[in-house]
Amino acid sequence: MKKIILIPDSFKGTMSSGEICGIMKTEILKHYPGCEVVSIPVADGGEGSVECFLEAVGGELVRAAVNNPFFEKIDSFYGLIHGGETAVIEMAAAAGLPLVENRRDPLLATTYGVGELMLAAAKSGVKKIIVGLGGSSTNDVGCGAAAAAGVRFYNAKGESFVPTGGTLRDVEKIDVSGLAPELRSVEIITMCDIDNPMYGPTGAAHIFGPQKGATPELVGELDKGVKALARVIERDLNQRLDDVPGSGAAGAMGAGMIAFFGARLQMGIESVLDTVDFDEKLNSADLVLTGEGKIDGQSLRGKVVIGVSRRAKKAMVPVVAVVGDIGDNVEPAYDEGVSYIASINRVAVPFTQARPRAKSDLALTVDNLMRLLKTMGH
Amino acid sequence: MKKIILIPDSFKGTMSSGEICGIMKTEILKHYPGCEVVSIPVADGGEGSVECFLEAVGGELVRAAVNNPFFEKIDSFYGLIHGGETAVIEMAAAAGLPLVENRRDPLLATTYGVGELMLAAAKSGVKKIIVGLGGSSTNDVGCGAAAAAGVRFYNAKGESFVPTGGTLRDVEKIDVSGLAPELRSVEIITMCDIDNPMYGPTGAAHIFGPQKGATPELVGELDKGVKALARVIERDLNQRLDDVPGSGAAGAMGAGMIAFFGARLQMGIESVLDTVDFDEKLNSADLVLTGEGKIDGQSLRGKVVIGVSRRAKKAMVPVVAVVGDIGDNVEPAYDEGVSYIASINRVAVPFTQARPRAKSDLALTVDNLMRLLKTMGH
Repeated sequence: MKKIILIPDSFKGTMSSGEICGIMKTEILKHYPGCEVVSIPVADGGEGSVECFLEAVGGELVRAAVNNPFFEKIDSFYGLIHGGETAVIEMAAAAGLPLVENRRDPLLATTYGVGELMLAAAKSGVKKIIVGLGGSSTNDVGCGAAAAAGVRFYNAKGESFVPTGGTLRDVEKIDVSGLAPELRSVEIITMCDIDNPMYGPTGAAHIFGPQKGATPELVGELDKGVKALARVIERDLNQRLDDVPGSGAAGAMGAGMIAFFGARLQMGIESVLDTVDFDEKLNSADLVLTGEGKIDGQSLRGKVVIGVSRRAKKAMVPVVAVVGDIGDNVEPAYDEGVSYIASINRVAVPFTQARPRAKSDLALTVDNLMRLLKTMGH
Repeated sequence: MKKIILIPDSFKGTMSSGEICGIMKTEILKHYPGCEVVSIPVADGGEGSVECFLEAVGGELVRAAVNNPFFEKIDSFYGLIHGGETAVIEMAAAAGLPLVENRRDPLLATTYGVGELMLAAAKSGVKKIIVGLGGSSTNDVGCGAAAAAGVRFYNAKGESFVPTGGTLRDVEKIDVSGLAPELRSVEIITMCDIDNPMYGPTGAAHIFGPQKGATPELVGELDKGVKALARVIERDLNQRLDDVPGSGAAGAMGAGMIAFFGARLQMGIESVLDTVDFDEKLNSADLVLTGEGKIDGQSLRGKVVIGVSRRAKKAMVPVVAVVGDIGDNVEPAYDEGVSYIASINRVAVPFTQARPRAKSDLALTVDNLMRLLKTMGH
């Protein structure tokens, strides 16, 4: 074992990807002191994503004063990587739920600050911007971000305004001609791991509205607003995004990123793998350790383990997935390139008892695995 | 992987060693169709031990009519292996709890039939007899077995009788001169995995009496009987066995095997390893799969996994232990030669939910492991 790559998803609510990398690395070095351990904490688009990217490839954290969800100035940030050629932005840094804590109101909350971050990054001369969706307090279809970047929204009276969740139905006309030229020439990737459509029973408002503070009544209102805006987008921008998978992400900002910024939605893990130049890193690797809270055969789309394995398989590098639970029907995971799935469960106890010991159980699992590989002559 | 040895302990109450071997073999052959899989179901001395030996090394099941615990004729058996040179006897086949079901009475139950089995085996010309202790209904210090083999026990009136748990205190004199000559020339190994002394708070009656049907009052009586007999053994046979580890096994038959038959007590796994010529089998093996219901660092003595690993370590063959739970402080197991410990727990659920799925979880664990080894080029 001369080189091992660590690229685990977080165990949601138990350990962050960065924590997992740290534990894995410690255990590996016990058995292979000279091993090159490459840690790639996986950004999922939500809070902490910028930090993950910076840790994985190095770079610079740039501070920027922008508007929070209620149009109040806050100190926010984005990341510059690849020698300043790529910016990474987590929308949560300007429009996240933690920023509004006890005054959640998706009728009023805006993504305006996200647009300001994008604009600041674009003006710094980057060629590519990665925007992570996740953890949003908003339901404004990204209109706020677009407005900050120069897109104009008009009401029936012809007045320009910044639409929020509660005023989407007032939008009569959209004009993207004012979009900042710096943003026009930049490639924009939007990290998005969910498949929800803009509106309807599985849309942004119904699925994610309640956690943003929407009562059942408000959910209906928000949903109608998104639907109405979808019609204006279709008419004025000639784009029908209603059912595009992920268009409902982050208060339907998935749709807005496409419609207003010409962005491409991409599974988060793919963005990470591209950004960290995973294929190149695989070249000389002996083993990849990935993982997630639970692996199963049902929904493989967008999963970190599968994304990682597909690429490792092509490069013929063995992949071990260290997971919390191993669900049923995991056969497809093996087909995609996973060689071994190690559950950190080592005693038969319920999750409430397993969770507090997850870190030590993870350590034991990796320690154990390294012993095996060493014994087997690797 | 050209040759893999399977030698797991049972997962008590969940899967027998033989069942585990079967599941492991199926999974191995899926991935290594040409692999030589050597299955050694581990006899623990209790019920099923003869079957285990016969399955492990081949041999002959010999029927014999003997006395059951209440001196009633039953059809019993022993095993002949090594071309008839070694006999294997499980005491449970003549004195086991299942034979007395709803009439448990350790005051009356005898090991007489066990002695008959030993005598029959000796008369067939074997050079070695292995007697497995375990699952007994008796508390007679093996006096019944000894009486069947020619040892004489006398009461105060000088009358010869066959002592049972309730009449041990009547023994005034022991005469071993009548022991059948066929048995004198045979090596007798007694498989015994427990450390309990003959009597006292951790002795045969106190610890195992209740499961044989003894009330608290009877336990005291049985205990006194064993203690009294220990004095006669010391006086007449010049052997002080009171605190010999394992002398309290099987209603203190451990002590009787030493005192009356000149037997040697041995940890079960050591008897198995010797008998199946494990060291020779290791010669060309690529891997050993062992296992047990729970592995921990506390009591390693007599454990299958440790016994197996010590020998495999000397032969430099990697050992993987497939277990139910992985307890704390397992470091000593690694020191003894275990390379990897795989828990079959794959979801965080309590044992009540884990148990019914143990077989499929075991299959998945072995399948998974084979995938890893194959990927790693083995």
